[in-house]
Amino acid sequence: MSDFPKTERTTITRLPKRGSYDRETVYAILDEALYCTLSWSYEGQPYQVPTGFCRIGDQLYIHGSVGSHYMRLLAEKELPVCLGVTLIDGLVLARSAFHHSVNYRSVVMFSTPKRVTEPAELYNALEVFTNKMCPGRWDDVRRPTDNEWKATMVLAFHLTEASAKIRSGPPKDDEEDYALDVWAGVQPLSLVRGTLVPDPQLKAGVAVPGYLK
Amino acid sequence: MSDFPKTERTTITRLPKRGSYDRETVYAILDEALYCTLSWSYEGQPYQVPTGFCRIGDQLYIHGSVGSHYMRLLAEKELPVCLGVTLIDGLVLARSAFHHSVNYRSVVMFSTPKRVTEPAELYNALEVFTNKMCPGRWDDVRRPTDNEWKATMVLAFHLTEASAKIRSGPPKDDEEDYALDVWAGVQPLSLVRGTLVPDPQLKAGVAVPGYLK
Repeated sequence: MSDFPKTERTTITRLPKRGSYDRETVYAILDEALYCTLSWSYEGQPYQVPTGFCRIGDQLYIHGSVGSHYMRLLAEKELPVCLGVTLIDGLVLARSAFHHSVNYRSVVMFSTPKRVTEPAELYNALEVFTNKMCPGRWDDVRRPTDNEWKATMVLAFHLTEASAKIRSGPPKDDEEDYALDVWAGVQPLSLVRGTLVPDPQLKAGVAVPGYLK
Repeated sequence: MSDFPKTERTTITRLPKRGSYDRETVYAILDEALYCTLSWSYEGQPYQVPTGFCRIGDQLYIHGSVGSHYMRLLAEKELPVCLGVTLIDGLVLARSAFHHSVNYRSVVMFSTPKRVTEPAELYNALEVFTNKMCPGRWDDVRRPTDNEWKATMVLAFHLTEASAKIRSGPPKDDEEDYALDVWAGVQPLSLVRGTLVPDPQLKAGVAVPGYLK
């Protein structure tokens, strides 16, 4: 796969060694993230909202209610947006306060929304979205009714301008600080899926499906 | 503490029951989040960056290098910003695809940056920031030198316009779907601190401090 082009907006100028324009790297971060932050500007005022999403090829999809104020605005005006995701991997505890940092993998993208109206694309986006949240779920649940489809708006963002920024590994201290009697290292952080909590109204006899075990 | 005012920009119009303007609720979400997403707009183009932050009273602080392009831009132009944090608490697995959801606690705020130049406020912000990342750390590490202070820019955002949005609890299905043989419930998600990874260059004999155990 070809790299994303380095544009004025996506070129990492601060700590450029942390930057990546590799498509597979960007895609892997997007596919792991459970939500993105969508930013837009209207009449000079910046706004943002966190929202679930999925990626299919070079398209990123979000969905919401047809009654959602911001979905309607973005769909109607096709405003330029900035989308970002961040995965936090650890706290980097250096010997000096100054060199404390965070291990992370983040992506920032620039795009423009297009409302998806073609039924096959709409259906596919919702299926991939549901299975991203919980692999195997789509085949197990009640599929959307015609009215539910009508109540759902899907926006697509073509991924043409994106970059990743990644920090990993131990702290980097100033040479003379390595002699200090200060503990240094990384405290890993990860988003962990916990023990399932059944719905109090779960029908008797319905077992936990294999894909959730 | 008084509630935040409901302004046109912060009023939750989509699923308003999930909205909160309670100051303690907003502060608790901010204090748990390890980073925020900072959005601004310049010449009509929206931008965003994830960044660490801390809250002291009704001020939110971020810091970065004096060489950072966006920090300089925000400091010089005092551009209006939108700041947000999101804590993901669980995947809500309903019986229908349509009612799948996420349990979360999020905050969106609107403010304007002010560069902090007063040394006591600057010092305090960095101390609170470091201890938020890792409680007790500040007293253990090498404090910033004069040159390190000079290389650090701190921006303050007065918290005057903010709202929280929260979903919790089990799925809400359509009445007739409760009879379906589909497992439903919540898969909890939490950001977990893992086993410490010592720096390969850690000085021999330096023990893990009590506040990290």
